[in-house]
Amino acid sequence: MNVSDSRDPVLVEVIRGSLVESRHAGAIAVADASGRLLLALGDVERPIYPRSAIKAMQALPLIESGAADVFALGEGELAVVCASHSGDLVHVEAVRGMLAKAGLDESYLACGAHWPISEDATRELLRARARPRAVHNNCSGKHAGMLATATHLGLDPRGYERPDHPVQVMIAGIISETCGVALDRSRMGIDGCSVPTFALPLAALARGFARLGSGEDLPPERASAARRLLDACFSEPVHVAGEGRFDTIMLRALAPSCLTKGGAEGVHCASLPSRGLGIALKIDDGAKRGTELAMSELIAALLPEASHTLAAQRGGELLNWRGVVVGRVAPSETLRRAVSDLDELAR
Amino acid sequence: MNVSDSRDPVLVEVIRGSLVESRHAGAIAVADASGRLLLALGDVERPIYPRSAIKAMQALPLIESGAADVFALGEGELAVVCASHSGDLVHVEAVRGMLAKAGLDESYLACGAHWPISEDATRELLRARARPRAVHNNCSGKHAGMLATATHLGLDPRGYERPDHPVQVMIAGIISETCGVALDRSRMGIDGCSVPTFALPLAALARGFARLGSGEDLPPERASAARRLLDACFSEPVHVAGEGRFDTIMLRALAPSCLTKGGAEGVHCASLPSRGLGIALKIDDGAKRGTELAMSELIAALLPEASHTLAAQRGGELLNWRGVVVGRVAPSETLRRAVSDLDELAR
Repeated sequence: MNVSDSRDPVLVEVIRGSLVESRHAGAIAVADASGRLLLALGDVERPIYPRSAIKAMQALPLIESGAADVFALGEGELAVVCASHSGDLVHVEAVRGMLAKAGLDESYLACGAHWPISEDATRELLRARARPRAVHNNCSGKHAGMLATATHLGLDPRGYERPDHPVQVMIAGIISETCGVALDRSRMGIDGCSVPTFALPLAALARGFARLGSGEDLPPERASAARRLLDACFSEPVHVAGEGRFDTIMLRALAPSCLTKGGAEGVHCASLPSRGLGIALKIDDGAKRGTELAMSELIAALLPEASHTLAAQRGGELLNWRGVVVGRVAPSETLRRAVSDLDELAR
Repeated sequence: MNVSDSRDPVLVEVIRGSLVESRHAGAIAVADASGRLLLALGDVERPIYPRSAIKAMQALPLIESGAADVFALGEGELAVVCASHSGDLVHVEAVRGMLAKAGLDESYLACGAHWPISEDATRELLRARARPRAVHNNCSGKHAGMLATATHLGLDPRGYERPDHPVQVMIAGIISETCGVALDRSRMGIDGCSVPTFALPLAALARGFARLGSGEDLPPERASAARRLLDACFSEPVHVAGEGRFDTIMLRALAPSCLTKGGAEGVHCASLPSRGLGIALKIDDGAKRGTELAMSELIAALLPEASHTLAAQRGGELLNWRGVVVGRVAPSETLRRAVSDLDELAR
């Protein structure tokens, strides 16, 4: 069952009083488009499920097929296709608009429903005594993009989420080419939103994100499609996640130098176009508080000009219910040392 | 900063498709009242913050001081003092009733406010356009018990949450005696609800829970106070957590053979009075999905007659948003082996 029994180093510590109360181990790869690793911490060759971190790659067929042009999709719509959105009105309207342009409606979404990530949106539904719908699912933009692609190609949109549907086969091929790694059907899982997620090594994922940002080592039409998706995310940061959320905060602060995108179970990826680098990390226990702190530290090292902007993300104060500071989330000694090596490389 | 750099074994695995997607390491101690360890997995000597897992110990002064008798507290009220409750009406009413009996009101609670753990209670507040109050805090029963103790002893109830208040000093003394370990002020943290939490080893915590259940090696009046608190929890399982929550489910299924109590950051303890044993475990990353599965496995081994009842807690299916099974949470090989050794000891 275990692909590997190796233990990754502790990357992030949760400190209360004078003690480390909890700790998060994980692995990190920083790579360029050729696959050269600037940093490999922990096991970066073990296949991991990228989950929602690669939505921008899953969105490439929407552009490459010509669907985005034919349906005249705007930047907000393209950004929400790359998003794990909060289910706020801005997201729901973008998804509904895109489905309408493709001649479809919400009933085609196969992602299932969950309460919006946005507390405000959840409260609005509760006040209206309504239930969440598939359109509130954080993945509904991605699904709308897959549906638009299928419709544009003259394919049956029903069943678009299944591994054998041509849209999913196209996506798997594109991920494989972009990351430079074969995808193994025996390492396919089903994501929370019902589409396939193929396990691949962090090293390959980091390379894929380097290529996505710089366009290096990609066919020209793919480089241009990737550029268009990243530009949409840089233009519409709220569409990619939502108010108060990490990826939106990072996009606002760092565009067009850096795009970050998180996924479930502790995965986080980033593309730094100006530096030609990609980052992929996974916290082994799946904790988001670990991924976001580690990602902030890495980006602060690779984009020294952004380190001031990132201070708030790196503070990591733990408050009690009365708002008093009782601890903090902090990089481990191992992560601090790795980051300071990166820092030197980046200068 | 690190007390120890040792790495605990992986105890719980989260499996998606055919791969282990995430993993939770941790440590487990199972001990009797003398401190003899039946199981020691991982570092059981490293001090950890017990957080809410020891609320029954923090409640002992309420009984020992005579406050519970003078204020004529019922079993529901005693159970809610030992609780991390859901903030449902049944909990809120028990806390308000106890405060009224002590001549106090909600304004004395120093725990701070958070949205109720209960989704129903949260929805009720939202529909009423109300905000959560301190009484909804999962620790409000514990705080009401501390306030009642202070008032009964003629102490100023204001400041009852501070480490130097006589009630907190009494509680620290009782925890130290019950677990048979000195508490070090340099290893004191402040809990989410603003009272002190002293770090102590899992081995000592397991011994404390063995003593709490069996009364062995405790002064007679403490053994009787502990018995009364456990009986209250066995009688009123919903007061100790809430509908649908692990500790309530376990109490309903296993009383009077076993009391379990969880705390923040992956701590879970249990007392098995009929077997004279205590369990203390911590998942190092703090994930509840790890603690609850590991605890279920341990109890199923120590109470073989309960293993059928526990099957639902040990199933651990992972569903996607359409309700399809896409994976499972399962004990690691290390935990399975340890549990099967315990199983033999228990026969």
